[in-house]
Order: sequence, then C-alpha cells, then structure tokens
Amino acid sequence: MSSIYNGNIKITLFGESHGKAIGVVVDGVNAGELIDFDYISIQMRRRRPGKNSISTSRNELDEAKVVSGVLNGYTTGAPICALIENTDIRSQDYKNFENIIRPGHADYTSYIKYRGYNDLRGGGHLSGRLTAAMTFAGALCRQILEKRGMFIGAHIYSIGKVYDKGFCNGVDDDVLIRLSKSEFPLLDNTKKDNMIKEINYYKDMCDSIGGSIECAINNVPVGVGEPIFDGVESKVSSLMFAIPGVKGIEFGAGFKVVGMSGSENNDEYIVKNEKIYTNSNNHGGILGGISSGMPIIFRVAVKPTPSIGKEQCSLNIKTKKEELLLIRGRHDPCIAVRAVPVVESLASIAILDLMKGAGMI
Amino acid sequence: MSSIYNGNIKITLFGESHGKAIGVVVDGVNAGELIDFDYISIQMRRRRPGKNSISTSRNELDEAKVVSGVLNGYTTGAPICALIENTDIRSQDYKNFENIIRPGHADYTSYIKYRGYNDLRGGGHLSGRLTAAMTFAGALCRQILEKRGMFIGAHIYSIGKVYDKGFCNGVDDDVLIRLSKSEFPLLDNTKKDNMIKEINYYKDMCDSIGGSIECAINNVPVGVGEPIFDGVESKVSSLMFAIPGVKGIEFGAGFKVVGMSGSENNDEYIVKNEKIYTNSNNHGGILGGISSGMPIIFRVAVKPTPSIGKEQCSLNIKTKKEELLLIRGRHDPCIAVRAVPVVESLASIAILDLMKGAGMI
Amino acid sequence: MSSIYNGNIKITLFGESHGKAIGVVVDGVNAGELIDFDYISIQMRRRRPGKNSISTSRNELDEAKVVSGVLNGYTTGAPICALIENTDIRSQDYKNFENIIRPGHADYTSYIKYRGYNDLRGGGHLSGRLTAAMTFAGALCRQILEKRGMFIGAHIYSIGKVYDKGFCNGVDDDVLIRLSKSEFPLLDNTKKDNMIKEINYYKDMCDSIGGSIECAINNVPVGVGEPIFDGVESKVSSLMFAIPGVKGIEFGAGFKVVGMSGSENNDEYIVKNEKIYTNSNNHGGILGGISSGMPIIFRVAVKPTPSIGKEQCSLNIKTKKEELLLIRGRHDPCIAVRAVPVVESLASIAILDLMKGAGMI
Amino acid sequence: MSSIYNGNIKITLFGESHGKAIGVVVDGVNAGELIDFDYISIQMRRRRPGKNSISTSRNELDEAKVVSGVLNGYTTGAPICALIENTDIRSQDYKNFENIIRPGHADYTSYIKYRGYNDLRGGGHLSGRLTAAMTFAGALCRQILEKRGMFIGAHIYSIGKVYDKGFCNGVDDDVLIRLSKSEFPLLDNTKKDNMIKEINYYKDMCDSIGGSIECAINNVPVGVGEPIFDGVESKVSSLMFAIPGVKGIEFGAGFKVVGMSGSENNDEYIVKNEKIYTNSNNHGGILGGISSGMPIIFRVAVKPTPSIGKEQCSLNIKTKKEELLLIRGRHDPCIAVRAVPVVESLASIAILDLMKGAGMI
Repeated sequence: MSSIYNGNIKITLFGESHGKAIGVVVDGVNAGELIDFDYISIQMRRRRPGKNSISTSRNELDEAKVVSGVLNGYTTGAPICALIENTDIRSQDYKNFENIIRPGHADYTSYIKYRGYNDLRGGGHLSGRLTAAMTFAGALCRQILEKRGMFIGAHIYSIGKVYDKGFCNGVDDDVLIRLSKSEFPLLDNTKKDNMIKEINYYKDMCDSIGGSIECAINNVPVGVGEPIFDGVESKVSSLMFAIPGVKGIEFGAGFKVVGMSGSENNDEYIVKNEKIYTNSNNHGGILGGISSGMPIIFRVAVKPTPSIGKEQCSLNIKTKKEELLLIRGRHDPCIAVRAVPVVESLASIAILDLMKGAGMI
Repeated sequence: MSSIYNGNIKITLFGESHGKAIGVVVDGVNAGELIDFDYISIQMRRRRPGKNSISTSRNELDEAKVVSGVLNGYTTGAPICALIENTDIRSQDYKNFENIIRPGHADYTSYIKYRGYNDLRGGGHLSGRLTAAMTFAGALCRQILEKRGMFIGAHIYSIGKVYDKGFCNGVDDDVLIRLSKSEFPLLDNTKKDNMIKEINYYKDMCDSIGGSIECAINNVPVGVGEPIFDGVESKVSSLMFAIPGVKGIEFGAGFKVVGMSGSENNDEYIVKNEKIYTNSNNHGGILGGISSGMPIIFRVAVKPTPSIGKEQCSLNIKTKKEELLLIRGRHDPCIAVRAVPVVESLASIAILDLMKGAGMI
Repeated sequence: MSSIYNGNIKITLFGESHGKAIGVVVDGVNAGELIDFDYISIQMRRRRPGKNSISTSRNELDEAKVVSGVLNGYTTGAPICALIENTDIRSQDYKNFENIIRPGHADYTSYIKYRGYNDLRGGGHLSGRLTAAMTFAGALCRQILEKRGMFIGAHIYSIGKVYDKGFCNGVDDDVLIRLSKSEFPLLDNTKKDNMIKEINYYKDMCDSIGGSIECAINNVPVGVGEPIFDGVESKVSSLMFAIPGVKGIEFGAGFKVVGMSGSENNDEYIVKNEKIYTNSNNHGGILGGISSGMPIIFRVAVKPTPSIGKEQCSLNIKTKKEELLLIRGRHDPCIAVRAVPVVESLASIAILDLMKGAGMI
Repeated sequence: MSSIYNGNIKITLFGESHGKAIGVVVDGVNAGELIDFDYISIQMRRRRPGKNSISTSRNELDEAKVVSGVLNGYTTGAPICALIENTDIRSQDYKNFENIIRPGHADYTSYIKYRGYNDLRGGGHLSGRLTAAMTFAGALCRQILEKRGMFIGAHIYSIGKVYDKGFCNGVDDDVLIRLSKSEFPLLDNTKKDNMIKEINYYKDMCDSIGGSIECAINNVPVGVGEPIFDGVESKVSSLMFAIPGVKGIEFGAGFKVVGMSGSENNDEYIVKNEKIYTNSNNHGGILGGISSGMPIIFRVAVKPTPSIGKEQCSLNIKTKKEELLLIRGRHDPCIAVRAVPVVESLASIAILDLMKGAGMI
C-alpha cells in the first residue's frame, strides 16, 4: 500500500468506504497561508454524492473536520489533518454478494494482494470515496496557487458520444474560475441536456457510461517541472492514475500527435509586449517536462462505473466457482461527472508540489 | 533537475548529448543475478542511431562500459554504473542557430529554468540521447523479469496514418520475444513497407512524423502495484513521460472507455484449470492500480521529431527578437521507431521496482 | 515540516499539544497481522504523563482510537490511523509567558521558521506530546517483530550521576521482555531509589535533570540494513533525533572506541553449534551498517527538561527585549524516564522498515 | 543496497575498492554555481592516502574526472558525475586471506546479505575508499555554502588518550577556514606531536587506534531543519553513519547533558546589536531539529582501523571453521585523521540539502 504521496507537498490518505471515517494529512504547506474553508466546502460539495438524480443516492455531507495544522485560519506549518465521517453506510448492500468479486473493481486484485484481509465492503480503502479526501487536500493547495494568480479548471469533455467543446490552445482565466465552481462544468452549456440524456439512457438500462475530462492550468510560470523523472507530465499523470477509473491521459495535442508532422505539431515562438508565447499550444504548456508559461492542458479518460445493475458473470473468490452477480447498491451511472473536481484537485497538488520543490513558492 | 528515479530500483542518469559521455547508475538490484551483456547490447543496438536511412546519421556505437557492481558476470548487490561514450559529436551543427530556441524542444523552458547555464548543444542533458542510458538500465532489469517468466514486448502501433494490428486482449509470449529483438517491431510485418513509405514521405519534405507504440507485459503475477499513489498505471505513466516526445498514455481500452458502457467495459471473470482469468482485457491487466495476472497493455503517443529541416519562425533567446530558424543537424524523421526499446525498458523498470517493493523479487 | 517518515514503513504524525487531538497514520504494514491493542495500551501507558510524582501532572488517558486499517483485529494492508484526544489542556499556563521564548525549547527556532504562525502553546506540533503517537506506531511495529522472535527492550541507563548496569555485550530475551513492560525499567532494580532521589533533588529545586537510555534488540537476523546511506545506524539515529531532547547516540562501544586499539575493539568470530557469533560485541550488532546477528545495542543522551520552575533570562520575541521568564506549567523533572518506550518504539520502526525493504518481512 | 542519498541534493555513489574506478553523481545543485575545482582537489588531497607515514601506503592520486553537469566552470543544473580511477590496487594482498572474514569489517555481514556475490576485495563497495567520492560531492556543496558566508571546519578532537581543545560554545570563521585546509587539523597545534606519537605507538605494535572528530558550521541562518523527522540532527547523524567506522555522534553538550540540570543546560537568550544569540551553546546550534543561528557543533567517534597486522581469531566463511588471520595489506593506523574532510563534506551536504528543501538556496 502506498497511500502517501511523498513530494514536496506530502499527502497521506486513510480510511475505508464503510469505516468510521476517512481522512487526509497534508504536510509541507508553508506557514502563514490564510485558508478559506468555504472554498474547500464548495469543492467537496461538487464531488459529494447524493445531490441529484445522476449521482449515487448515498448521501454524505462530507464535512471535513480539521484536526490540526491551522490556527486562527492560517496554516501553522504543521501537518493539516482533516477527518470526514462516513454517515450513510449501508453495508448490507454488500452482504448480498459477499465473496463475489465485482468485475471492473479492485475486489479480485486486492483480495489476492492483501490475502483476503482487506476490507472489501464498498471497495474499502480503494473506494472512490477516498477522492473526498483528495479533494480536501487539493482544494487547500489550489487556493495557494490561485492567490498567486494561477487558475485551475476542468470541464466534462465528453460523456458517451456527446462532446463538449475543447480548450484548444488556451482558455481565459474567467472561464476557469466559472468551471471551477460548477457542479456540471461545461464550456458549451447547451451540451448539458444531451449529456444528461446520455447518462439517463444508460442509467435506465441499469448500466453506466464512460466519459472524459479536460483540465487547464493558467499562468504557471516558465520553469516548473523537474526533468528527467519529475517532469510536469510525470507528476500529473502519476497523480491522475490515483483516481479510480482513470485509464488514459494526454497532454496538449495528445494522441493526435500520432498523425501530425513536425511542422504541424511544433508550436512557433512569438514575442508580444516583450513576453514570449507560442502561437499554438500542441505542447500543452510543457516542453521537456518543464512548463512553458502557456496553459497546461490535459485530458483524462474515465471508465464507466463498474458497479452496474445488470447481471454479470463472476466468481466466488473463496470457492473459485463461477457465479452470477447482481449489484443492488447505490451507484453513479457516470463517475466522470463527479471526478471533475478531483482532477482539478490532484492537478493543483502536482503544480504546488513542483513549485515548492523549485523554491518558487 | 530530478535525474534520479528513486524507487525500490533506483536509476541515476547523467551526461549530455555533446559531453564526453552519458551514463547510468542502477541501484537496488539483488546480488546474484547473472547478467547477459549481449542481451543488453541487442537492446541498445535496437535504439542506437545511424543504422539505416530512417534514423539520424549520427553514428554512435553505444557500447556501455560497466564500471561497477558486477563481478564474474553476476550482480554484487552494489550499484551498477555504466558509461556510454559520445563519439560522433558535431557541435558545429548547433553553432548555426546558437541562441535560437528550437520549437518543440526544451530549449526555451530549460534556458529559463536553468537561467542560461544549461548545455543547449543537442539538448544537453534533456537530449533523447539519454534514452541510451535508460535502455541499458531497462535491459538489465527486464532480463531479471524474463528469467522469472515475465515477457515484455512492444511494437510500432502506428506511424502517421499507417496502423499495425493491436494486441487486443492479449498476446503470446513468443510474439513478445520476437518483438523484443526486432529493430522494426510489428505484429503484422506486411505493414512495414507502408510505414517506411510514410516516414520517407515526410523525410523527403524535410519534415517528420508522429507515431504510437503499444507495449505488453505477460505473466506479471496478481498483486503487483501499490495503491493509492503507486499503482501500476502511476508508476508506468510517470516513467513513460520521462521519454522525450511522449504526450499521451492509455492502458487497456484506454480512451475508448469514454464511449463504452459499464456492461461492455467490465471484464467478466472465468475459471480455467483452477486459474482465474477475465474473458476480455479492457482493464489492461490492472484493476485498482494492482496487476490482475492478465497481460498489462498500454499505448503511448510519440510526437513527431521537433528538429525538422524546414524553416520555422522562432526567436533569439538573448535578444528576444523573432528570427527564422533552419535546422541542418542529423535527425530521425520519426522518433517513435527508436523509442520502442526505450518504452520496453522503462516498463521493465516499473514492474521490477514494484515487485521488489512488494518483496516479490 | 517533515512529519512523515517515508521508509518502507511510513509514519505520518499530526496534531498539536493544545489542539483537539494528535494522531498518527502507519502505512506499509502487511495485511494479516493480528494486532494486540492491549499491548499497545501498555506501551502508551508507560509513556503517558500523570502517573506519579516524578512525571508531569498533566493527566492524559492517551487512549488511541483506531480509525482505519484494521478489521476484525487484523491489519488490512490499508493505512492505520489512530487518534489520541487531548483532554487535559491548560493553555492558560502558557498565557503568562506569551511571546517569551523558553530557553532550551524550539520556541525561538520554530517562531522564525514558521514566521510566527506556528502554534506555540505547549510547543505545538513540536511538543513531546507527539511521542504518544510515535509510541502507538512503534508498539504496533514491535509486536510484528516480536511475533518473529525479535525482542526490543530499553532501560534507564543513567539519571544525573546515578548509573544502572549496562547491557555490555548482550542480554537475555527474558530481560528485554521484562524491561519492555516496566514503567521504570532498570537492569539493577536496586538503583531505583537513588534515581528517584536524584530526580526529586532537582524537582525540589524547581529544576530538572538529564539522563540516558540504553536499548537492545535481540535476534535481528544477519543482513538487515542498507549501506551506504541506509545502514542500521543511519536509520536508528535519524529516528532517535526525532525525539525531543535527544542530543547524542552511540552504538556498541560507542564513544569508548576513541581510546581503544584495533585489537581491543575488533570482535573476533567464533562458531558455536554451527552458528557464527562474535565473542564480544563492541560493534553493537552492526558492521558496515548491516546487522551481524548479535544484539543491536545503542545508548541515547536525553537532555534535562528545558521547562523548569526557576527564573531564567530570556526575551520577548515580538519586542526583541530581554525579559525574565518564570514557567509555572506542569513538567517532568526528568524526561528520560518517559522517553524509554519511545526509544523502543522508534527502534522497532527502524528495524521493521529495514526488514520490509529487504523483503525479509 | 542504498547508495543513493535522496534528499533535495541527491548523491549517488558507485564503485569498488578494487574495481576500475569509483564515482559519484550529484543531482539537484542549482544551475549557475561557479565551481572551484582546485578547492575540490584540496579537499580530496586532505583525504587521500599515501601522503605520509601515518596513512596507508596505497598511493592514489584521487584525481576526479568530471563527466557531466559543468560547462565553462559553471553548474548547468544537470547531474554532475565525477569518476575517480583506482590506480594502485594490490588485490593479491587479499588473496592471502580469501574467505577469511576480517573482524571489525563488513566482510561477514555483507557476505550473508549479498549471499557471497559481493566483491570482498578491499571491502568492495563498502570500502573506506568510497569516502573519496563523498569528499568530491561534499567539497562541491560546501563551496556553495561558503560563498554565502557559511563556514564548515572540523578538527581531530582526540586520538587515543591525546585530546585537542574543543570548540566549546563556538569558534571564529577564520579558525574554520584554517582547519578546512589543514591535513592534520587541530585547534591547538602543540598537540600534534603527541598525537603522532600515539599513532606511531600503535602502528609499531601492528595495531591501530581510535579517535574523535569535532565539526562546526558557522553562520547557518535560523530556520534550517525540518522537524519532526528531518531535523538537523537526524540529517547530519544519518549521513555521518555512512562513514565507515563512525560509532557515535553527539551535538552541542552531547552526552554531557546526561549529568546536567535544566538550569545548567538551558542556553539563555540575549540580544546584541538587535540580533538574538544564546549566551552559551549547549544546544549545539539546534533546537527542535531547527538551526538557531548559533554555530552547529557536533562530535563523532571513529573506531580504530579494523585491519591490523596482529594475528586474530576468525573463521573461513565457506567452511565455517575457525582460522587464524594475519592481514598484511596497507592500512592507516588511525582512520580518524583522514576522516576529517569526510565529516566536513557530509555535514556540508546535510546543510545544503536542508536549505535547498526550505527554498533558502
């Protein structure tokens, strides 16, 4: 188990889906940062379940109780621990299929790895519920960046066959600020209805649907990122794959570079008001693992919720006999929606971490 | 700078494209592993330049001189250092455009980060040349895996518009062994001519072309990978983005999950001869960051070589004035080809690292 | 701040002396270890204050509430979080000398480092109170070692001028077991009265007294410790200096080697019942940073409690004017006594960490 | 094996005593530092053997060949690799006692740990010879500190029964500068003759003698050190025990605190010219793991050279039979003398590392 992110900002996660509480310890934040806890609540509310028809009906308030590291609203330099209680647990939902490993989940792999001792209820420590703790940590880090003029925002790039517009080469700060407060963030809000329809289509079939998220970070100064092994892409990707369900990531032009020529893909330099820009942003704000000053842009692919209400072939891990499985728990039909603030949060941690390491914050 | 990969296997890279030598130190390899240096030479030859018309004419023998850590052919437990001399340097190629930052390279970002003190000749320490040292380290690690029955192989998945077949749900060990020795590895060798044509088309236009690589690792036991932050995807992706030019990575069904339903994407479990499998492999051999025993499959997008013979708009970093740039150096028209053994190498390091950390090797 | 020990066993500490709670997250413990929480309580009781006349009258029950990582008494492989509430806080004790930095404490250094934002009440996060959380983590780790036959025990080696006997070349397992349950552990119990007298002598003068602790670990197998930088001495010493007040550490013959000749200091090898021993143990069970199979023996020097009831010259950190300081809080006259289980705890973490890293546990 | 120090400054050591070369890679040094290689040579010469009658007659020039990371005399931000060739090897000296494990060396422990595969000739990778590479790295780091007004100097504190004066509460910069260039550094040079006599006394008896070293670092600003786990004492001690033969370390009053009262040991604060000092320095410049601005002072105990010309009881590791051993190699009669620049070097690395991590350099 490696529930500690040990960068220059250090994040320790703990807790299980059906335990008393989950939580997080954030170490390495400078002393003297005024923390806006309402801001953190907004981010946690964006992620929390039970808000509407397209998210699980598990209803968690997700109030983070700060145990340490903050005095009179300011960080003290000591580790910040936050506890988030689990209040709406229905472990009996899992009794029905005890010992039946759920396809698409980590039940099988974690059962073998932890030799049957791990808490399988609701995914235990590997549950998506832990992303609440990630969001707390990220919302704390991102306001430190925002105070210094860096803005992080993501939108639902696609759900099933329905696509939003893309960031293309860049995006205004205002748009990022708007996105970062929205519970269904889109560049083109007219796409919302079709996306909801797409989700409900699968929900009505007791099924789920995948999606993708696009994230941008504006105004990161030139020079962030530590090649060779801790470049921006390495740091960001490593953190994104900590989100359950993420199966791919691409920066800038991403997989499109595969069919591009060098003359198309290279972003040429221009000087405007004595500042250096590129006139396109296929490089996604990163060259050689180092930020270029252009918006850092990436997209992640999020798989459909593995918990579905359809009957699936599976097996009993104890008897090793095949058995049919019907999951009756409460689940999101599309986890990509609630993953948006988590993506923003982990991106914030990556950037703050790299800037701290470089002595830039 | 973070030229040290500090896992359970530790890799230290050093050297510059136009310096005396590059090199690598591999620490953490168990004592008593018999090392096949011919095997390492084969891998380094697959990567080395100057072999044919579709690679740069810079002719480097890339003979690795082992300085430490090996006695009578066996690892001693001490760090293994290998030096690779630079023999065919033509720094004058870079004189022509001194101070002109090359689009698509790290010239600008590293110049700012290192305040003008970094060695820009040929990309300095951020040159693709360092992948020779990565290949040494990886070839050393992968034979330790192979001796235990794990096989790593990659193929050119696409160049421009020309696509090879894909691994789909899995691949035979024999195929991986064949691929891992090939200098132009393909599943369907009939695609080679069209791919070469595609490359030469761009080469003839003084341009370059992107490509993608697909890699599989067979027979990794269940239980490798340390969630939450050091899952297989996190480790592998973090290392892949250490390769210059990689802009995207996807595991299993990858970005296709975006349009898939849960019932399509979930891989159902079956039991064959008392062993547990999934009847498809959309999860790419990884669930919850932990290996499932199925082949680990991923694809990376490699951008077109940024060094092209076409005139480009750029600027002089000292004067901050725009200038035209014409690069006359020796460059690969498609770096994806030579990146294949590098992808395999870093994948090997990731898996050995995780297995070592889990006490499995 | 670096409140995370990031070894193969990972320890995250959080909390402040006068906050709601302190706590610890232990990550990296294998799944399937049956945890004896009574055992942990015994260790925490040995350390806890308020028990008798020679410890501070601050009365903390120090009951650790386990939040995560344990199911049905067994570790799950997930991080184990324990919370310890602060129940007997008297912050008003600190009001009297607000802004007056206490000599011998970290008030001044932490005030400057954290630019006045840190919680100074009772030392905040740098308080000796955090050793309760260390003891929880250590008591958890040491029972994993004990189940495998390794025993850890320490005794008060000296208080002021009164010395206990020393371990010399080694010690029986039974003695270590006895020591590890004692609240005033001594090899020679007849020394207790004189030591208590020594403590009370200084207590009566509103002063405090230093002491030293000797610790032994029996039956650590040969081969534990990772030279060059993570040898047993490096790991153990690095952790011991995390205990407030420790100012020195020595292994085996320690500072006595300074006056010894090689022929005196070298421990000669002997074979008994086909097992290899040394006939003396000046090397303290460690050669080249690697355990030799002989008892690992070390001593630490613990300074006298800096909080004393005598008037001291100091200064007001805000006005930078010299001021007299009289501390009226509740303090141990000799912190060495309560530090014994902390020393054992951190030693246990060091050994478990190294064994885990080497795949030996 | 853990031959990488992975701080904010990263040090990778490689090589064996009887291999072709040893070397070091230093990563994390800022770009733009002008390196004085003569300065490095001076430090390496202080450490190198073969200079005089009281050091081994193995004659190594110890010229470090810089392979990477420096351009036109300035650091480039890329890792700096230096190679030091082994030129005067006499492996036949070790033939005589092949398979006989030398008391006081790591022969036995490393043989077991590395299952007989490690290079035992001259201690292999665990040889004191590796301290040449440490000295290169340290001499590089310390000049970065010196340029910023911090001075590091150590002296031979004692050899056998002969003691130099001590630093007491502090020392002038000039003295540290003088010490840091001396090959037999003493505060009181009149002690030299007696010390040499002491060494020769043991040398003439085919024996060796222990010693101790005292080191001071002046002008480290307040606030260096990351409690709880990376305080100055933790960092420094962890590195000191990487030096073969070091068996103890103490800071400030060190083991003397054991017999001191709080009122004696506490250093009171005073204000002079608006700067804050303590009027004594029992805390050795460190409170709560954080530098106080006072000189950082510590002492290490160095054991007598384990290689002695006297017959010793030992055993053949292959036959497990006891055998007599007579070592005829070339050895220092007192390794403490040549360890002085190594102590200074590692102290420099520790301080630079902590300052870099705190964004102070």
